[in-house]
Amino acid sequence: MKPIQVGLLGIGTVGSGTFNVLKRNQEEITRRAGRSIQITMVADLDVERARAAVGEGVQVVNDARAVIANPEIDIVVELIGGYGIAKALVLEAIAAGKHVVTANKALLAVHGTEIFAAAQAKGVMVAFEAAVAGGIPIIKALREGLTANRIQWVAGIINGTTNFILSEMRDKGLDFEVVLKEAQRLGYAEADPTFDIEGVDAAHKATIMSAIAYGIPVQFDKAYVEGITKLGAADIKYAEQLGYRIKLLGITKRVEGGVELRVHPTLVPAKRLIANVEGAMNAVVVQGDAVGTTLYYGKGAGSEPTASAVIADLVDITRLHTADPLNRVPHLAFQPSELSDLPVLPMSEVVTSYYLRLRVADKAGVLAQVTGILAGLGISIDAVLQREADEVAGEGAAQTDLIILTHDTREGTMNDALAQMQALPTVLAPIARIRKEELA
Amino acid sequence: MKPIQVGLLGIGTVGSGTFNVLKRNQEEITRRAGRSIQITMVADLDVERARAAVGEGVQVVNDARAVIANPEIDIVVELIGGYGIAKALVLEAIAAGKHVVTANKALLAVHGTEIFAAAQAKGVMVAFEAAVAGGIPIIKALREGLTANRIQWVAGIINGTTNFILSEMRDKGLDFEVVLKEAQRLGYAEADPTFDIEGVDAAHKATIMSAIAYGIPVQFDKAYVEGITKLGAADIKYAEQLGYRIKLLGITKRVEGGVELRVHPTLVPAKRLIANVEGAMNAVVVQGDAVGTTLYYGKGAGSEPTASAVIADLVDITRLHTADPLNRVPHLAFQPSELSDLPVLPMSEVVTSYYLRLRVADKAGVLAQVTGILAGLGISIDAVLQREADEVAGEGAAQTDLIILTHDTREGTMNDALAQMQALPTVLAPIARIRKEELA
Repeated sequence: MKPIQVGLLGIGTVGSGTFNVLKRNQEEITRRAGRSIQITMVADLDVERARAAVGEGVQVVNDARAVIANPEIDIVVELIGGYGIAKALVLEAIAAGKHVVTANKALLAVHGTEIFAAAQAKGVMVAFEAAVAGGIPIIKALREGLTANRIQWVAGIINGTTNFILSEMRDKGLDFEVVLKEAQRLGYAEADPTFDIEGVDAAHKATIMSAIAYGIPVQFDKAYVEGITKLGAADIKYAEQLGYRIKLLGITKRVEGGVELRVHPTLVPAKRLIANVEGAMNAVVVQGDAVGTTLYYGKGAGSEPTASAVIADLVDITRLHTADPLNRVPHLAFQPSELSDLPVLPMSEVVTSYYLRLRVADKAGVLAQVTGILAGLGISIDAVLQREADEVAGEGAAQTDLIILTHDTREGTMNDALAQMQALPTVLAPIARIRKEELA
Repeated sequence: MKPIQVGLLGIGTVGSGTFNVLKRNQEEITRRAGRSIQITMVADLDVERARAAVGEGVQVVNDARAVIANPEIDIVVELIGGYGIAKALVLEAIAAGKHVVTANKALLAVHGTEIFAAAQAKGVMVAFEAAVAGGIPIIKALREGLTANRIQWVAGIINGTTNFILSEMRDKGLDFEVVLKEAQRLGYAEADPTFDIEGVDAAHKATIMSAIAYGIPVQFDKAYVEGITKLGAADIKYAEQLGYRIKLLGITKRVEGGVELRVHPTLVPAKRLIANVEGAMNAVVVQGDAVGTTLYYGKGAGSEPTASAVIADLVDITRLHTADPLNRVPHLAFQPSELSDLPVLPMSEVVTSYYLRLRVADKAGVLAQVTGILAGLGISIDAVLQREADEVAGEGAAQTDLIILTHDTREGTMNDALAQMQALPTVLAPIARIRKEELA
């Protein structure tokens, strides 16, 4: 049979990984797919780099549209990234009747609804395993492996940069800024790390998982996004003493009346497997009503791990490109006509438990004031840790840290409590508030 | 569209779970599959139990062949178990043109080659996600999600009974026999636990994963199988002191000249995620050349977790039953014409590292004798732990435990070393030998 011909748009880290793995494992992949899959054309603005990456025998162009226009190309792989030109090219490829594979989470989280509708209308597939958690086949697990389940929640470490930073902060007791510089030096963080450290990248991925889990359209604009830049070494240490670790989690939950979709630093019990995922590794926990808790772990980024996901998509498309669209797995797991209008809830409606750290004056009555405010709003306390004043290094005896763990509370109520507590004259610094999830 | 009609053979734990989940999540599953999937006929020798399980509206018979003969039935789910009647019924269902879903690892590990060939010839699918690691979609991950990879090794906790027993032995410092009774009382172990505790069940599952990982026929008869019945509480304690945990692992590795396929208690570094999988939970680690290390965790048994896998297979078949067989994923991941004859190596050819515990006379020169034997056979030592004689409780000062960790060694060479050491008059009891894997 004639090989499946693939055109790559962009040959940076993931593109060259895809090219290399496909070449190295060509025999084995063909034995599985039943047909050879070959990258025959590559578009990159840097034609020299592209030529160096693919060697002889592959057509290299600087115009992505030449790949899309090539009638020999069966599948277009978009590895440019971002919402701009990538969106136009993906839509043009679909319009030209090409199947598309993309690793572009930003594009799908923001414009997925439009893109999937176009693909559906044209009868082509848009595959995106590489867009979430790199080499971990989590899209396939959610969309196919757990298809029997009513998914209850998904919580994942889906950004390697921030997990690396948090792991280093905990291991070495260092502050965020110091570790960020180290991460940049090691290549775990980009020169402009904003999308990673502010939680935007994780929110893109959580948005995609949310859509698949519950059969709702992608709604990145409804996601609550909070990064790790304000996290202090002290909170990591206190969390540890209380039996928790702090991870940046992407969380989506099905609750009464809607879906929660949020990214923020989260206290997780140290004994949970996901709390022990260290360094740049990713892991996603999925809770289904039939299967219970499942977890998927692996490398969430990098050249060949991401290529592993891109090629899995190429093989799936190779198998199914001649099949009836009805034989295929729907883009968002549910049939397009069967998407739900379950709303994404505003953050103020989210219910979770909290870790609070208050820097307070070391005076009698402070604890009573603080707990009085919580009680007044019906917020129930799980644990209080009051540091001896002299344990707070370098601050003299006039201040101390008061740590409070609460039971489940509406975020809106907690915001009211925080405003009241912050206004107390005995509260001497901005209160640290970190959400807590038991994940059980 | 007309519902897909499913016939169940056997409605015990997994069968009733499948019925219940399919009913409870009917709306959601239909929204995903694009078509309703209904169990319309059930065969069970205990017709009363079957009727109680499914209620009105489902035809209940005591003759499985009536289900197979029913032209309305599209998919037959075999949940009888064992090699006997189950094999005959699966082959008859295939011959009748039915697709088959089975959770029967014993059947597939032993007769899979014959069954898959029959299905291939008839153009039907035999799906078996539930046969390995219950609700964890590991078959799909290995067969599809990691299809880009040359799989290097797979190592899994794939028997919940033994993992529960080992977790309890470690937690509570109890002996095997005591914990086994407890496990039986709690329903984690069967009245006749032989298949679980002797490693046979894990070997069935490892055999299936081995075939899928490397594209070789299922070869249960070539698997090395060692259970946990001889494991002492002392070894669990010493392993802990050395930074390891003991898990019953099913391991299959691709090495020079062949494939390793083995089940045995294994020391795993305590810091590995899989070492922290406790109780009856399962987890499988897969190492691929592109993706690196990935891990899949969840419930490996039980009514609804296993049903989750059975129903995922039902949905896959519902999608693909009208597709060309070429559009489908091959049973053993590789096209049937492309299976490999890579041999499964005899255990004597396996290379691994070892934990040895020798009960020796507390005399000068014993360590020299023992290490002399190892040196003579070219076995290199990683660590030695000699207990102070008085630390060995209740034995007086005349005996002590000598623990040795070795570097990688051929099993055959280790067998020679063990024979020589065992013959020393200063070695006072059978030597405990446990294999060790770094899994990195």
